[in-house]
Amino acid sequence: MNAHTRNAGGEDALEALITLVGADIEACNQLILKRMDSPVALIPQLAAHIIAAGGKRLRPLLTLAAARLCGHDGERHILLASCVEFIHTATLLHDDVVDESALRRGQASANALFGNKPSVLVGDFLFARAFQLMIEDGDVEAMRILSEASATIAEGEVLQLMIQNDLTATEAQYFNMIEGKTAALFAAATELGGVVGKRPAEECAALRTYGGALGIAFQLIDDALDYAADEQALGKMVGDDFREGKITLPVMLAFARGDAAEQVFWRRAIEARKQEDADLAEAQALMVRRGALAETVDRARTYGDRARAALDIFPDSPARRALLGIVDFCIARAR
Amino acid sequence: MNAHTRNAGGEDALEALITLVGADIEACNQLILKRMDSPVALIPQLAAHIIAAGGKRLRPLLTLAAARLCGHDGERHILLASCVEFIHTATLLHDDVVDESALRRGQASANALFGNKPSVLVGDFLFARAFQLMIEDGDVEAMRILSEASATIAEGEVLQLMIQNDLTATEAQYFNMIEGKTAALFAAATELGGVVGKRPAEECAALRTYGGALGIAFQLIDDALDYAADEQALGKMVGDDFREGKITLPVMLAFARGDAAEQVFWRRAIEARKQEDADLAEAQALMVRRGALAETVDRARTYGDRARAALDIFPDSPARRALLGIVDFCIARAR
Repeated sequence: MNAHTRNAGGEDALEALITLVGADIEACNQLILKRMDSPVALIPQLAAHIIAAGGKRLRPLLTLAAARLCGHDGERHILLASCVEFIHTATLLHDDVVDESALRRGQASANALFGNKPSVLVGDFLFARAFQLMIEDGDVEAMRILSEASATIAEGEVLQLMIQNDLTATEAQYFNMIEGKTAALFAAATELGGVVGKRPAEECAALRTYGGALGIAFQLIDDALDYAADEQALGKMVGDDFREGKITLPVMLAFARGDAAEQVFWRRAIEARKQEDADLAEAQALMVRRGALAETVDRARTYGDRARAALDIFPDSPARRALLGIVDFCIARAR
Repeated sequence: MNAHTRNAGGEDALEALITLVGADIEACNQLILKRMDSPVALIPQLAAHIIAAGGKRLRPLLTLAAARLCGHDGERHILLASCVEFIHTATLLHDDVVDESALRRGQASANALFGNKPSVLVGDFLFARAFQLMIEDGDVEAMRILSEASATIAEGEVLQLMIQNDLTATEAQYFNMIEGKTAALFAAATELGGVVGKRPAEECAALRTYGGALGIAFQLIDDALDYAADEQALGKMVGDDFREGKITLPVMLAFARGDAAEQVFWRRAIEARKQEDADLAEAQALMVRRGALAETVDRARTYGDRARAALDIFPDSPARRALLGIVDFCIARAR
């Protein structure tokens, strides 16, 4: 089975979301292109590489759909969705520097093409531009949500560094880390839909819960895919996490469930980072043997269920169905 | 003459500024320490290294003094001065990554001690925290000023990379660069004093002009000192700019005024970055021969005069005298 047929169910859900928001995502893309411009030529060049390369725009799509769910009929959701994507892009640029990744979305990463220095600075520019945009919007609650998410993302990324190569890290630390580095922006993206829709606090909180749980499911699947999928399906190099000695749930589970010889293997590969060519295949085999990937996907499903349940307080609507479907999209990537 | 006696006039002006703002700078320091905290231990550790190491706090001092000049009697200037310092610190952390500097304020730079990765991410955290603080303040005009400054700083830093090692760069490019990387935050810092004092637009603009001109003077002197001062006086390694092939006004002037042999020297050292041990001394000698440092200091004095003139619309007061004195402080460093 190739990547396309494997993901067909999930891709349909993404298409449904895109259809739902209609022209809004195009307006968002246009705003992003317009506002990433600068007289300093390297900025739009580098930003275009990562922004125009066409990620899924999952996070801004979530803002647009949540705004639709909440009956917003203005233009504010487009501006705030653009802020979300700018913040996401800035963190990608800084994450690529940090991780020394060579691939991002199936293409050479910005830092591999342009160098670390411009990636850091263009990330800073996009981050500042996100704040300029949200200040134009002028809603203090939206600013509070996005600035808090930005600080939490940085905390999650630092926590990731602190437990890197450390097999004694706890599951609690792992979940704190992914709540920060991934779930915080998902939660902000969906909560903003409630804010622009001027919905009561209970509904904003429900949207925040939905986004946060979805983000954790998304990251769990991402961490499983690093050991399971082919590069074409994932759009990043399989085994990147392994080579960097990243502590992810699949590794933690395989290590905890492994026998003495397996633990020696993981310590050498992840803690000492002494790796040989055949080690990735060995790691993948050990993960299957110990059920580490299946367990990780199961956990993702549990968070997916939480995300769905959070939407119970909203009546049935095309927007609600699209948001429910996107849970399938995030999890179907691991099929 | 040692650094202290050389800078005595300037240091007196800095002392006068600190005396003027009194307990405000201590309150600002306390707020900075409180708000740089995080449950992720590496963040306060690394932030303390660069923040608590005790820079001059020149930028927040400018905000506090400008607020005093404008008759502000609340607490907002303390919060906004802390924002200014957080943004400055974030840019220092990212600048150290970029420049691979080994010294900062006379100590090992954060990235030399902690690595590039944490420096990028803690910089992001401090930047996000600055925005959280200004959103707590809630003044949209202050947010607009600081977010615009943040974007402009990034543009200036990227421009610096674009013209690095390029002796064909124009003076206009150089001044655009330092207006971005240095003067934008000085201008924002002083304009904020007018904003919290709720002064008319004309006075806010005058404070902005003062800060911007002061920032350019400050950077010109900094660029001259890299070729002139001893390390003890400067608190950073003399010759850093030279070794990195940075394009600064002293280099541009020495190159433009040099004979053919000198231009070959500059091309080798700055463009090709093929440097030998004796090259820094040779560069310093050529700068003296061509009057490049004297001219750079003269230009700084001209900007210093502009900064002083911008304060003409304010009546005499201790705050105005302190701000006038700080122009001397910035320029006296080059004595």
